[in-house]
Amino acid sequence: MKAFIHPNKTRPGGCHLGQEYAVTPWEVKGKVDYLRLAREFGVQLITDEDVSLLKGLTGGDVHYLIRRGFFYAHRGFREILERARSGGSWALYNGRGPSGDLHIGHLVPWILTKWFVDKFNVHYFFELTDDEKFLVRDGYTLEETNRLAYDNALSLIALGFTPDRLHIIVDTDDVAYLYKIAVKVAKKLTLSTVKNTFGLTDSNNIGATFFPAMEIAVAFLPTELFNGETPVLIPTAIDQDPYFRLARDIAESLNYPKPATLYSKFLPGLTGEDKMSASNPDSALYINDDDKEVRRKIMNAFTGGQPTAELQRRLGGNPDICPVYKYHMLLSDNDDEVRKIYEDCRGGRLLCGECKLMLYERVSAFLNKHRELRERAKDKINEYKISVKFK
Amino acid sequence: MKAFIHPNKTRPGGCHLGQEYAVTPWEVKGKVDYLRLAREFGVQLITDEDVSLLKGLTGGDVHYLIRRGFFYAHRGFREILERARSGGSWALYNGRGPSGDLHIGHLVPWILTKWFVDKFNVHYFFELTDDEKFLVRDGYTLEETNRLAYDNALSLIALGFTPDRLHIIVDTDDVAYLYKIAVKVAKKLTLSTVKNTFGLTDSNNIGATFFPAMEIAVAFLPTELFNGETPVLIPTAIDQDPYFRLARDIAESLNYPKPATLYSKFLPGLTGEDKMSASNPDSALYINDDDKEVRRKIMNAFTGGQPTAELQRRLGGNPDICPVYKYHMLLSDNDDEVRKIYEDCRGGRLLCGECKLMLYERVSAFLNKHRELRERAKDKINEYKISVKFK
Repeated sequence: MKAFIHPNKTRPGGCHLGQEYAVTPWEVKGKVDYLRLAREFGVQLITDEDVSLLKGLTGGDVHYLIRRGFFYAHRGFREILERARSGGSWALYNGRGPSGDLHIGHLVPWILTKWFVDKFNVHYFFELTDDEKFLVRDGYTLEETNRLAYDNALSLIALGFTPDRLHIIVDTDDVAYLYKIAVKVAKKLTLSTVKNTFGLTDSNNIGATFFPAMEIAVAFLPTELFNGETPVLIPTAIDQDPYFRLARDIAESLNYPKPATLYSKFLPGLTGEDKMSASNPDSALYINDDDKEVRRKIMNAFTGGQPTAELQRRLGGNPDICPVYKYHMLLSDNDDEVRKIYEDCRGGRLLCGECKLMLYERVSAFLNKHRELRERAKDKINEYKISVKFK
Repeated sequence: MKAFIHPNKTRPGGCHLGQEYAVTPWEVKGKVDYLRLAREFGVQLITDEDVSLLKGLTGGDVHYLIRRGFFYAHRGFREILERARSGGSWALYNGRGPSGDLHIGHLVPWILTKWFVDKFNVHYFFELTDDEKFLVRDGYTLEETNRLAYDNALSLIALGFTPDRLHIIVDTDDVAYLYKIAVKVAKKLTLSTVKNTFGLTDSNNIGATFFPAMEIAVAFLPTELFNGETPVLIPTAIDQDPYFRLARDIAESLNYPKPATLYSKFLPGLTGEDKMSASNPDSALYINDDDKEVRRKIMNAFTGGQPTAELQRRLGGNPDICPVYKYHMLLSDNDDEVRKIYEDCRGGRLLCGECKLMLYERVSAFLNKHRELRERAKDKINEYKISVKFK
């Protein structure tokens, strides 16, 4: 584990919550206390020991999103690593509620998942929940959420997955793969449990309360498809934990292996929030934002800089609270480069304007390439559908 | 309408509930007040006018299950008949929660449905709800309810439907046909509505509350499959009304035609109950009861007869309260034959023992033939699956 960015901070190794611990850049500012969240959800923090075990399996490599503490908590990750070490089969799973406002932050967990696929050569199941998006949101038709599912899938494919490893499930089109499992899951979950877990009430519709069975079903699908115990590892944002806590609770009673999870913090908002806000489009960089728009948003972003260039040169900036720095961290795999930004900011050698321009160039290059890859993915999308590979 | 059995009684033509009316054999004894049930559900009674309209479309024929008042109430039946008269398309729909104890009474509504198919040459969609049976009953695995679905389907096919008209849906296998519609239906139904309508509570599972969306979905499926407005007529027992009342409530908001229903009374129990009881196997004649068992059950049946043969000859029996007579009525399409049983019983010329033997012979002949036809259906069942006909 490279420690330059947050020495002993990123991942409070073996940290007990009562102990003193150093916050990471994700905690220092804002309303979300990630350690408290982990404690409230009852999930484990990723420890140095976990990372060592991971390193032992990848020839020493650990993805920067883990190294830098963006993924920071889990349920059962260790068991997956031990299973991998002993040659047991496992798979990856995550997904997305399709929408028209896919942004660059959404891609971050998929980038980590790509790394796991590459390192471990395992199957990856991706669920696009067009049903849920329609059921819980007003203003979408099911035809729209279904169309958006395939649109969003292009961005996933654009990250470089091959069709022999990535299997895309669109709930309403591929329900045949899920429904039998979902019905078994549903029988294990009372309305009471689901209402309490997800904060639903009798005013919600009957699809909203059924839906968790569809999200949980995918966690058990590989075991059915491969006709043998195949636990999944689910890299996702920590707010998805309620689904998978329930999944783990009922797995054994259904003779399925417990799914494991790997939880990230939330995506930072450019305008300074800890979590991006859908009501503030300037807080996110959307896939379809053109260069001008990207530049405008980045140049207007909140930073950890001083009020004037002179003060910045004298006192240095504060990257730990800076979304521009966080975006550098999320998008660059080059530690030296990120370290230099951090240190130059702290030392007053890097002004916010220059740092923002660097980010603009990084994002612009990424997005232009990404849109090109999305275009190319359009011809190939059918190859990724679960239905063309598993009968 | 032949009136010999219950002159002006079978179907209280244009009857208002405040008016005097003559009860039918289905009402005179027992706990179920069918007119009250119709009133409480808010459904219409079948009128002479409805029957005349039906006759006008079938060349004067009206099926004995309608003539004799076993099917006695409806929602929107008239609209279907008027649609048929004007050449509009419509379809038939009903179904079954698969179980291991299919009995002869279960076949009765399917016999009426067969008549509609023959007279109107319309498509018939049949839903086997293996999901629901598993979700609401303990002691069944989903694999069992799925197997029973195909077993129960054999009895339907054995009634003589052709694969170009009968389309069998097994929920967990054919969910791809239903799920998109079910999700749209689900969004229209709050937990509150479904809990109140079906008497469910927060202790029920999330599948039980979702399931009504699957049953309602089939009512809208023909409109999707034929890509044009195709209302369904649903011949079923009156206790299924809550599903279709909801379906009618939401149909227009989903741009589907309202489903129509035709409601029967409950199946009489041989042991004297108005409704067969699952806890009393002697009250029903199961498809797999052998001749000896059928004979024993019928010979032990409750009747409307007098305590002694002498009294019966002197005073006559009371067929109106007699389940043996009801079974003759349900299973014979020959009015002269049924009238003779009724009159000979009333006149003391027919003793219960003889009448029971006649019923035994009728049932035995039917069941032996039925089991043979079920055997033959095993090779053909695939031809009836919706999935081989609609892609």
